[in-house]
Amino acid sequence: MITELLNILIIIVGAVSLGIAIYFLRDIKKKEEGTPKMKEIASAIREGAQAFIKREYKTIYIFSAIIAAVLYFALDFTQHGGIPYTLISFWVGLGLSTLTGYIGVHVATLANVRTANAARKNVNDALGIGFRGGIVMGLFVIGTGLLGIVSLFWIFGGIYNITVHYALFEDPQYRPLLFYLLYNAEAQVFFAINPGFMFITYNTPLQFVGFGFGASIVCMFSRIGGGIYTKAADMGADLVGKVEAGIPEDDPRNPGVIADNVGDIVGDCIGMGSDLYESFAITLVVCLTTASIVPEIGEAGIYLSLLIATSGIIASLVGIVVTKGKEGEDPFKILNKGIIAAGIVLAILLFILSYILLGGLEGPKGRLNIVPFWLGVALSGLIGLGATIIITLNTQIFTSAEYKLTQKIAEAAETGPATTILKGYATGLKSTAIPIITVCCAIVVSHLLADIFGIAITAMALLSMVGMIQGIDTFGPIADNSGGIVEMAELGDDVRERTDLLDSVGNSTAAVAKGFAIVSSGLVVLATIKLFLEEAHLSIINEAKPLEISGLLLGVMIPFIISSFLLESVSTTAFDMIKEIRHQFQTIPGIMEGTGKPEYARCVDISTKGALKGMVIPVLLAVVSVLIVGPILGTEALGSFLIGDLAGGLIIAIFMSNAGGAWDNAKKWIRAGNLGGKKAPAYKAAVIGDTVGDPFKDTAGPSMNSLIKVMNMLALLFAPVFAVLFI
Amino acid sequence: MITELLNILIIIVGAVSLGIAIYFLRDIKKKEEGTPKMKEIASAIREGAQAFIKREYKTIYIFSAIIAAVLYFALDFTQHGGIPYTLISFWVGLGLSTLTGYIGVHVATLANVRTANAARKNVNDALGIGFRGGIVMGLFVIGTGLLGIVSLFWIFGGIYNITVHYALFEDPQYRPLLFYLLYNAEAQVFFAINPGFMFITYNTPLQFVGFGFGASIVCMFSRIGGGIYTKAADMGADLVGKVEAGIPEDDPRNPGVIADNVGDIVGDCIGMGSDLYESFAITLVVCLTTASIVPEIGEAGIYLSLLIATSGIIASLVGIVVTKGKEGEDPFKILNKGIIAAGIVLAILLFILSYILLGGLEGPKGRLNIVPFWLGVALSGLIGLGATIIITLNTQIFTSAEYKLTQKIAEAAETGPATTILKGYATGLKSTAIPIITVCCAIVVSHLLADIFGIAITAMALLSMVGMIQGIDTFGPIADNSGGIVEMAELGDDVRERTDLLDSVGNSTAAVAKGFAIVSSGLVVLATIKLFLEEAHLSIINEAKPLEISGLLLGVMIPFIISSFLLESVSTTAFDMIKEIRHQFQTIPGIMEGTGKPEYARCVDISTKGALKGMVIPVLLAVVSVLIVGPILGTEALGSFLIGDLAGGLIIAIFMSNAGGAWDNAKKWIRAGNLGGKKAPAYKAAVIGDTVGDPFKDTAGPSMNSLIKVMNMLALLFAPVFAVLFI
Repeated sequence: MITELLNILIIIVGAVSLGIAIYFLRDIKKKEEGTPKMKEIASAIREGAQAFIKREYKTIYIFSAIIAAVLYFALDFTQHGGIPYTLISFWVGLGLSTLTGYIGVHVATLANVRTANAARKNVNDALGIGFRGGIVMGLFVIGTGLLGIVSLFWIFGGIYNITVHYALFEDPQYRPLLFYLLYNAEAQVFFAINPGFMFITYNTPLQFVGFGFGASIVCMFSRIGGGIYTKAADMGADLVGKVEAGIPEDDPRNPGVIADNVGDIVGDCIGMGSDLYESFAITLVVCLTTASIVPEIGEAGIYLSLLIATSGIIASLVGIVVTKGKEGEDPFKILNKGIIAAGIVLAILLFILSYILLGGLEGPKGRLNIVPFWLGVALSGLIGLGATIIITLNTQIFTSAEYKLTQKIAEAAETGPATTILKGYATGLKSTAIPIITVCCAIVVSHLLADIFGIAITAMALLSMVGMIQGIDTFGPIADNSGGIVEMAELGDDVRERTDLLDSVGNSTAAVAKGFAIVSSGLVVLATIKLFLEEAHLSIINEAKPLEISGLLLGVMIPFIISSFLLESVSTTAFDMIKEIRHQFQTIPGIMEGTGKPEYARCVDISTKGALKGMVIPVLLAVVSVLIVGPILGTEALGSFLIGDLAGGLIIAIFMSNAGGAWDNAKKWIRAGNLGGKKAPAYKAAVIGDTVGDPFKDTAGPSMNSLIKVMNMLALLFAPVFAVLFI
Repeated sequence: MITELLNILIIIVGAVSLGIAIYFLRDIKKKEEGTPKMKEIASAIREGAQAFIKREYKTIYIFSAIIAAVLYFALDFTQHGGIPYTLISFWVGLGLSTLTGYIGVHVATLANVRTANAARKNVNDALGIGFRGGIVMGLFVIGTGLLGIVSLFWIFGGIYNITVHYALFEDPQYRPLLFYLLYNAEAQVFFAINPGFMFITYNTPLQFVGFGFGASIVCMFSRIGGGIYTKAADMGADLVGKVEAGIPEDDPRNPGVIADNVGDIVGDCIGMGSDLYESFAITLVVCLTTASIVPEIGEAGIYLSLLIATSGIIASLVGIVVTKGKEGEDPFKILNKGIIAAGIVLAILLFILSYILLGGLEGPKGRLNIVPFWLGVALSGLIGLGATIIITLNTQIFTSAEYKLTQKIAEAAETGPATTILKGYATGLKSTAIPIITVCCAIVVSHLLADIFGIAITAMALLSMVGMIQGIDTFGPIADNSGGIVEMAELGDDVRERTDLLDSVGNSTAAVAKGFAIVSSGLVVLATIKLFLEEAHLSIINEAKPLEISGLLLGVMIPFIISSFLLESVSTTAFDMIKEIRHQFQTIPGIMEGTGKPEYARCVDISTKGALKGMVIPVLLAVVSVLIVGPILGTEALGSFLIGDLAGGLIIAIFMSNAGGAWDNAKKWIRAGNLGGKKAPAYKAAVIGDTVGDPFKDTAGPSMNSLIKVMNMLALLFAPVFAVLFI
């Protein structure tokens, strides 16, 4: 009875969040678009973004059809007697994530031009439209994520009904021959009449893991595709337009300018959206699974997890209400107010819910019994929120031009591009220390406080902020786009100044979101690995056997190799873009005088094709490596492979994101008039540093998040299959 | 009786190798130095190098005095009842390694000018002197390494006499209170009369591990100090001389030119020498220890290890005899002949010795029993030699301008510095795949063939080639120096052409040696980690506890952080150098016309100070992190910390070395006339790429080898101490 009420409550809150999102969407649509020129530009961006998303999603669906067939035969067919639990949840996760992405494109391409138009009057209205646009995406992420999982929970009748038993010959040498699976009552009968067999049992609720895996697939493609698209367009447009032809950024004479603006949306907005969607979904799945396999927590833990996610929606709604300011107030402070308010609401609800649901429980035996279990869980959640704050500050210190470190990168530009690159590179490397130490402390302490469930809740509390974080993140590309539209539509310097202000705020919020995405990925993957080891029945691994060490070495290596392919795809596509833009400058008469019209669509096409092509190898490497390491080197090696992959991927993600961000801001700092400003040779050197950093921070770095997650979900799904081959 | 004969044989061969080295040294000294100008330049280089080495070694000795005090109290005093086993072997290892370094400086600064003088006549005489100079260093490395360990073996009476017993309360809560150690017969008595105690036993022969650790300390400082020195001087001299003032490389008017040449010697020759010395010493120690703790191998394994090292000397001597060619023959081929001959001799001796010594043994139980044990061991050795070949080929393919990959980096320079940097970076990342997979295969297969002893022998066979490898490596900086002397002494274009040929050969041999150093470090560290885990009594670790995962994350992170500091030290020192050279160009009258003399010594001083200062933080980070992680996070976390450190360090070492090499060769390829040659804008871009790559390939990359080794030796030494705190 109470659980049914809770279910209804969760669904109502989820539905309300979607309702509010749709209300905001309609509200934005009602605003004016501005001049015919603005409409024309906006529709070109919209068409480009929608065309890319369609093709990207087509690729995802084709690839997923193959994956789904494998999933069905390897898991549902053999383990669930043909009932497509995994299959259905996979498609639901995948479908909802793509739906969210589609909504994101829709709202961002509506909001960008309307933000530009509002900026003709004042900053605050523009900020309002941009932020609401972001919030639509944010509410969709958290709302559909929560509703999707709760629906599966209802459809499949909870967590506990799908336990899988493998029947194995007791004699090890025959085991590979037998691959027969039974479920529920069948198993009892089988073992009663077949004495020569042993069996192993799996508890992972594949009907939810499928959901997370579906979201993972979308994320992997969106991060990689969007990342390649946006940076190839950006680098191509900048190198020929700004550097060679000497025209300003976003100048309508540049044939690559529409592709550049499309890139902001498909990369920064949709890529990040799919990333946070995936993290949110996986975290919820991990929480549910952890609660279900630790008997001391059970149903209370399941509902606690769902209700923390629900609290996240409530906190976001409070945050939205609070995000208001006067004209002239610093927009970053206005957005910050909202986030802080949401964080406080969430923290309070976290303590209340933990007390109510877990108040009477002893908790698992492994934990350090210095505080009551409910308090340990609540504190674990608080640790998650605290970790984000520390890592955000770290990002600020290492990448913001207000601090010495980035200024030193700018100063190193005075002795040329090589020294500024080395300095930025070294700074990026150094920036990994505090985040890694923070993540380590977070998992060690939350594990002490509440065992493995503590780690899961640390991630869950963090991810419940996803509505607000996605909101301020999506605001970034919308503001960036609006600046582009103002420039292209030639609305004048005062309007551009206003959108520039919003754009710089957007850069700061994007940095916050990036830090958030990395920590949350790290935490959720750590929790997933723990689960994988439980499910693969690897309670005792690692005597530093050569196979395990090999798995680890290969795991650390994979992110290096994949980032190599990503950087190359950006370079190759940017190179094609450069050739095309140069060609247009040379062959279209009157293009420089503004009488000849550049062919924007051709550049959009180059970025699209480059992005689609560039996805292939990284995706295959990620998926195939898990499917090779598991069966060939064994599950123990796969365990160390995943841990190595996490370590390498996380560190590279932080390093690349921060190095890229620091170069970018060092350049902007010089452009703002320091060290001789735009005319100085140092500026030229800093532009080179920024160009190197672009694919670091917006392609390779963020893609690492998605790769470590997708590889872990894949391993978790196939853990029973691999384990049977090796036990 | 037989063992005594063997001991005498080993000592004779070791002594012969030193005798031949001294003979070659005297032979080189007899050759003529050439013009007074040449003598003057050579003595400036010699003084600079000797001054630096003296100051570097002073730092090493001061630091080591502190370390030695800790070693004595933590190990000898508590474990060996005050007999300074560890202390003595530590100082012997350290002393012999510094002696070898000192000889290296001596011979290289004798040979450089004599090679230059011989090049006035023909290539072949110059090659002969340069190669003999290298061989002196090579024979000293392998000769003193072998003799040092055999002497300790004699002095301390073999392996088996030093077993340490810790007495522990059986009740865990009192254990930290008791830290009492007994050895030999004492233990028996103690346990007989004190029933409330349990005890644990350690077998690591600390009297040899101390030797390896002493060599490690020298290597760590030499690699870091030499690496910073050489690249700061190189970058400073190039950026002001070549780029700003437009004078050629090695021009005597450049105040940084002597520092640059000194850098070649202290970085490429002494740094690499100490690295290979350390690898050789540790490998021998690991082999001896492994043989001693696996009862199925025992004394036969100990003598096999020593005799394989001895065979390495014999193989090198054969290689030296074969290294001869006619005038006009490609010098690289001549050197290659020698290496191939040495490899073949070594392989044959390996099979013979394994058969004789292990022919009757069953071997450890863990191995796969498809071949006899002796054959398994011999094949493991062959795998080590094979792995070097694969990794050398990989280095060639990824860094030589004869292959497409490097040419593409050069082509990317046509669109500016940013694209060539990205391309080179991506190429470097990709180059890690084959070496890592090769190392994994090597350890897995050799472990199957001969268990843990197989891994040790894989490394031992590889390292026995150290005499020849060190020889051709030291040839590199000698040839480089001779070119500099020819240029500075203005001996004319035809002589310069000859030394340029030798220099390019030296670059190729340096690449071979670099690949060798990396693989050998990787293998020896893997073997050490296995030993560490045995000695820390960690037969069962890793249920992916948060502490272990934290250890791993921190381990992977450390190489990132340390390389950051190294890159920054190079930048900072290079920056000081740039300022000094600019200052001299502006203030010394007639410097550009050749009438005013530049103050070389001031540049030498800047590099020296920068290098000494730059050592501090990386060394402290490496040492302190082990001493913190061990006691605070525990031995299990330390185990995963070391594995993570190996994975991160090895991959970064390969990546940075290859990326740097590829940028360097891409630049040279353009300079050779491709893509428009020296005048094209692509060349300027490629020079920037090369400047970024310089500290990658010659400072940070190679330092990783030394860091992973020193951290492992430290952990191995303190394993008993840490273990007692946690068991």
